[in-house]
Amino acid sequence: MSNSTPLPARLLIHPIIQALMAGVATPALAAAVSNAGGLGSLGIGASSLPEARQMIEQTRALTARPFNVNVLCHQPALRDAKRETAWLEHLKPLFLECGVDLPASLDEIYRSFIDNDEAFEMLLETRPAVVSFHFGLPAAEWIDALRDAGIYTLATATSLEEAGQIQERGIDAIVAQGIEAGGHRGIFDPDSVDEQLSTSVLVRLLARNFDLPIIAAGGIMDGQGISAALKLGAAAAQLGTAFILCPESAANQGYRTDLKSERAAVTRLTSTLSGRPARGIRNRFIDHAELATAIKPIAYPVAYDAAKQLNAAAAKLGNHEFAAHWAGQGAPMARELPAAQLVATLVREMSV
Amino acid sequence: MSNSTPLPARLLIHPIIQALMAGVATPALAAAVSNAGGLGSLGIGASSLPEARQMIEQTRALTARPFNVNVLCHQPALRDAKRETAWLEHLKPLFLECGVDLPASLDEIYRSFIDNDEAFEMLLETRPAVVSFHFGLPAAEWIDALRDAGIYTLATATSLEEAGQIQERGIDAIVAQGIEAGGHRGIFDPDSVDEQLSTSVLVRLLARNFDLPIIAAGGIMDGQGISAALKLGAAAAQLGTAFILCPESAANQGYRTDLKSERAAVTRLTSTLSGRPARGIRNRFIDHAELATAIKPIAYPVAYDAAKQLNAAAAKLGNHEFAAHWAGQGAPMARELPAAQLVATLVREMSV
Repeated sequence: MSNSTPLPARLLIHPIIQALMAGVATPALAAAVSNAGGLGSLGIGASSLPEARQMIEQTRALTARPFNVNVLCHQPALRDAKRETAWLEHLKPLFLECGVDLPASLDEIYRSFIDNDEAFEMLLETRPAVVSFHFGLPAAEWIDALRDAGIYTLATATSLEEAGQIQERGIDAIVAQGIEAGGHRGIFDPDSVDEQLSTSVLVRLLARNFDLPIIAAGGIMDGQGISAALKLGAAAAQLGTAFILCPESAANQGYRTDLKSERAAVTRLTSTLSGRPARGIRNRFIDHAELATAIKPIAYPVAYDAAKQLNAAAAKLGNHEFAAHWAGQGAPMARELPAAQLVATLVREMSV
Repeated sequence: MSNSTPLPARLLIHPIIQALMAGVATPALAAAVSNAGGLGSLGIGASSLPEARQMIEQTRALTARPFNVNVLCHQPALRDAKRETAWLEHLKPLFLECGVDLPASLDEIYRSFIDNDEAFEMLLETRPAVVSFHFGLPAAEWIDALRDAGIYTLATATSLEEAGQIQERGIDAIVAQGIEAGGHRGIFDPDSVDEQLSTSVLVRLLARNFDLPIIAAGGIMDGQGISAALKLGAAAAQLGTAFILCPESAANQGYRTDLKSERAAVTRLTSTLSGRPARGIRNRFIDHAELATAIKPIAYPVAYDAAKQLNAAAAKLGNHEFAAHWAGQGAPMARELPAAQLVATLVREMSV
């Protein structure tokens, strides 16, 4: 077949999905996108169970439309005390510059969904219209249970092989994430060889090879980009970086300033900030961390704990050079508009 | 502005340009594409002056339609005898495996167009409808002279900055080459930092920022891909890998077999084969050469001389593992069709 199956019309009026963006997407952002006829998303992978439940309830209070709740399905971290010590030693000059000591220890700050029974039960109970998986997949029984509860499921693929696993596991639709995407790359095994397919190549390959709806993700910033993705056979486009400057997002001033500056044109895919490959605006942290060619970045999300502790100390001094300012290659095209207005603009541009 | 300026209607009926592909594109291929209403191309960067002239004359004998002649505008090689020796030493096991000694010396096998007065004079004399530049630009006076002779000019950009130089130098249209493209990356300075923008991000950025016609190049394999590029604001799409399996191409049996196999799904952007970054199907040469992390690949096209001498010896033994089988990320979508039929198929797919 040439073009992918459409998404259910009940989920979205316009073929626009706001990407999860843990720490950036808020109930206000997700609800505004859904109210405007797109599909808003919340990322709860970085939240505690009570926080996640509250985010879902807040979003539901702000919209009667469907929205998506994203969970992270990474393999739990393989700790390596020696490598963690070496990694912290490498970061030491940055901690000292911020006037703080090295952390005495690091934590696995985010719990994977794959063995988080409480999170699974919470989703079954709160029943968001859509649940999406990133970094991998939960067990087939959980996916079956979510579907039996009337929840539509999405999962990210960065390759044909991952898309095959997604189809086999009974997921409803595939998010095709290209190498130009901002934030965390959804690759299941970050230690495997990555073909780094671009969004357009990946979408075209998946649309030709799978019957499931394909959602294009990566580098899409305007209605023309969405129209192009649909021509490639996508059922919808997922945009993340395009929504960061919305007033409803939780991006702080440092992040917004970076994204509005010329620096937005220079992004790096790096594992140094979190322990998994992710694309963000190049900064001093990345430059320094990438120098450690002899030390493999420590496991996700343990590395993220180190970077976040450093950034917390730096931010107190007004220094945003050590922050994770995730952004895709299309970042220079980001616009500062309220979410509803941005969705309306995207829809208008699609008919250009 | 949102969309790019169109290309002159006299140059092509369909928005399809066959990419240069030195060593693969033939007069028969270029003429077949032009006769089918696309724009065929010849790459003469690897040819002697008499050969180049003959290719142009042969193409002209086969078509009354316009075609494009591509020249390579790289900076002449900076030779480094010590590094060349180290590089050859690294390749030694492969030469020995093929039963030949290391080359006694290496040559700069391709002369850059930028100081090749005879090639410039030949173009002025033969007056192909279109001349395109890769790896950089010739002097403004030459570009002016070509334009005064009625020749339409194209140049490859991999970034906004290169596109700016192209516009400034008075070129007529910009080929936006994304990171997924097969063959040689057109980056002007291969030692500069490469943002590795995908085709869709680069096309969108250039269409928004320049008034010149933009030609999308990289990962486009079918009519849906061409339609998507036009939605992004491109005036046309340039396809290379899509034409390799045409019977009119000069690709040998080893290349065709590779491209039709599962190996086509695995490409690498490497400087090891030629001295400049280029994307090809992963093989034993690339795997071995990339191990030399302590040695920087030697200059283009001196490195190519080494790889070509090795491949010549290997090919005699029926071994194609050391060949440059250039291909883009979309390689698994390549089709084996006569060029005219392929162009007709692409056009039909554009209206799907």
